[in-house]
Amino acid sequence: MTEAAPAAAIGASEFDRDTAVTRREPGVYDTELSAGWTIIAAVNGGYLLAVLGRALADALPHPDPFTITAHYLTASVPGPAVIRTEVVRTGRTLSTGQASLFQRDANGEEVERLRVLASYGDLDALPDDVRTSAEPPSFPPPEQCFGPQDAPDNGRGTVSGSSAITERLWLKLDPATLGWALGSPSGKGEMRGWFGLADGRDADPLSLLMTVDGLPPTSFELGIKGWVPTIELTAHVRCRPAPGPLRVAITTRNLAGGFLEEDVEVWDTADRLVCQSRQLARVRLTG
Amino acid sequence: MTEAAPAAAIGASEFDRDTAVTRREPGVYDTELSAGWTIIAAVNGGYLLAVLGRALADALPHPDPFTITAHYLTASVPGPAVIRTEVVRTGRTLSTGQASLFQRDANGEEVERLRVLASYGDLDALPDDVRTSAEPPSFPPPEQCFGPQDAPDNGRGTVSGSSAITERLWLKLDPATLGWALGSPSGKGEMRGWFGLADGRDADPLSLLMTVDGLPPTSFELGIKGWVPTIELTAHVRCRPAPGPLRVAITTRNLAGGFLEEDVEVWDTADRLVCQSRQLARVRLTG
Repeated sequence: MTEAAPAAAIGASEFDRDTAVTRREPGVYDTELSAGWTIIAAVNGGYLLAVLGRALADALPHPDPFTITAHYLTASVPGPAVIRTEVVRTGRTLSTGQASLFQRDANGEEVERLRVLASYGDLDALPDDVRTSAEPPSFPPPEQCFGPQDAPDNGRGTVSGSSAITERLWLKLDPATLGWALGSPSGKGEMRGWFGLADGRDADPLSLLMTVDGLPPTSFELGIKGWVPTIELTAHVRCRPAPGPLRVAITTRNLAGGFLEEDVEVWDTADRLVCQSRQLARVRLTG
Repeated sequence: MTEAAPAAAIGASEFDRDTAVTRREPGVYDTELSAGWTIIAAVNGGYLLAVLGRALADALPHPDPFTITAHYLTASVPGPAVIRTEVVRTGRTLSTGQASLFQRDANGEEVERLRVLASYGDLDALPDDVRTSAEPPSFPPPEQCFGPQDAPDNGRGTVSGSSAITERLWLKLDPATLGWALGSPSGKGEMRGWFGLADGRDADPLSLLMTVDGLPPTSFELGIKGWVPTIELTAHVRCRPAPGPLRVAITTRNLAGGFLEEDVEVWDTADRLVCQSRQLARVRLTG
């Protein structure tokens, strides 16, 4: 993250500006999907999840997403969008809400892009007890890892395809999961790396929703070229992340029938497992 | 499963009768929650998921749940309920729908019990390709495992509390994960066992939705007594299960802040990983 000094603050960063929502009326929010978070032509699914997560944080009485699920319906495009939220239930510890993002098609018809169902709480109100058997992923320090900026073409072809998002992220991938970038994928469904925002903004529960979809897909290491669209993604935010770079580890164990799961763990500098997610994605085995 | 002869057929079993839904009008279904799937007083969350899964299978053009998420809002009780569904999107390969289950409270007011968001497809239309690194869980054969029926009180106190559901299931738990039943939990967040329906009905995609919530909670092996209510559960059905008993393996790695995740794998007799699920549950550390 040292490339970008001084570091942007939470609330005043590129990510915060690009995920901002404006309340039009109770429960309805206007937003502008940024072209800065696209992978090739597609708007990153984690960025979209963060935008809806921010709308729900405003609509619900609790601030933090504890568990949030998105079903991706149609391809979002950069530009204006409207988010319609529904408060499903409010409780003392948790509240549950739903949100949908819509954009207008060429005929001016509203088309639903994704739908989200989530339960929110207050991470700072949780007891400090931790009894975990989970171990942080082990891989080399950032200076021994590689990211888009280290690619010959500065990442515009290699690590994420021609992707604006690579300029927004500070990504340092474990060389053991970078075989695909050198034309020799490991065949293992693993992707690991250090993760931050290029402007140095620290992670918070909303940025974690983008982080879980921010690395190249494990399918690259399985030797699968081409697009792996997310059908559904569920993220559990378990702890407010400590400042500093995150470690992200993704595992795919079962590629079958043209679908695969991506299991993601996100660890912070305090060695806390701050987020777990799983997505179901479609794969085209042509490649 | 051999205890129950002759085996009940899919479509004509206890599970099918107890998860039946009747279309009242397009998208609206009446159902009767059975008292046969309760754990102590609570209606099993997996059973509820299967009931809503059946309604969505009727409401959507595709038959099988590929990914389904439930948020549990209020405690369901045995008795009449109404399910309201919405078709969110229909596509060639997948369709997405939403469903909510309601019951009337003492004042006759409708109360939402749980809300489900799911994408359905046709498992039989998927290609046969499998490239998996997942290994089936390894534990002793059923005759060396133990279930409620093996308990001194026939399961009415031990394995699942006083629970009607234990009479509906054929459950043989790995002794290595049964320490809690003998008063000496292993401290590991693991639960494994053989799983079937007591009347011998084979598994199908809908019964898998109940299976993923059908074992005792891993929290028992963590030494936590008492209730572990599910906040959210997401299940991916990856393959139509082959006939015969299933193997279920549950892992909890992170108990923190009063919440834990339960990761479930379900394997069939053909050694296929037929279902993956994860739930977020609340734990009370008084015990």
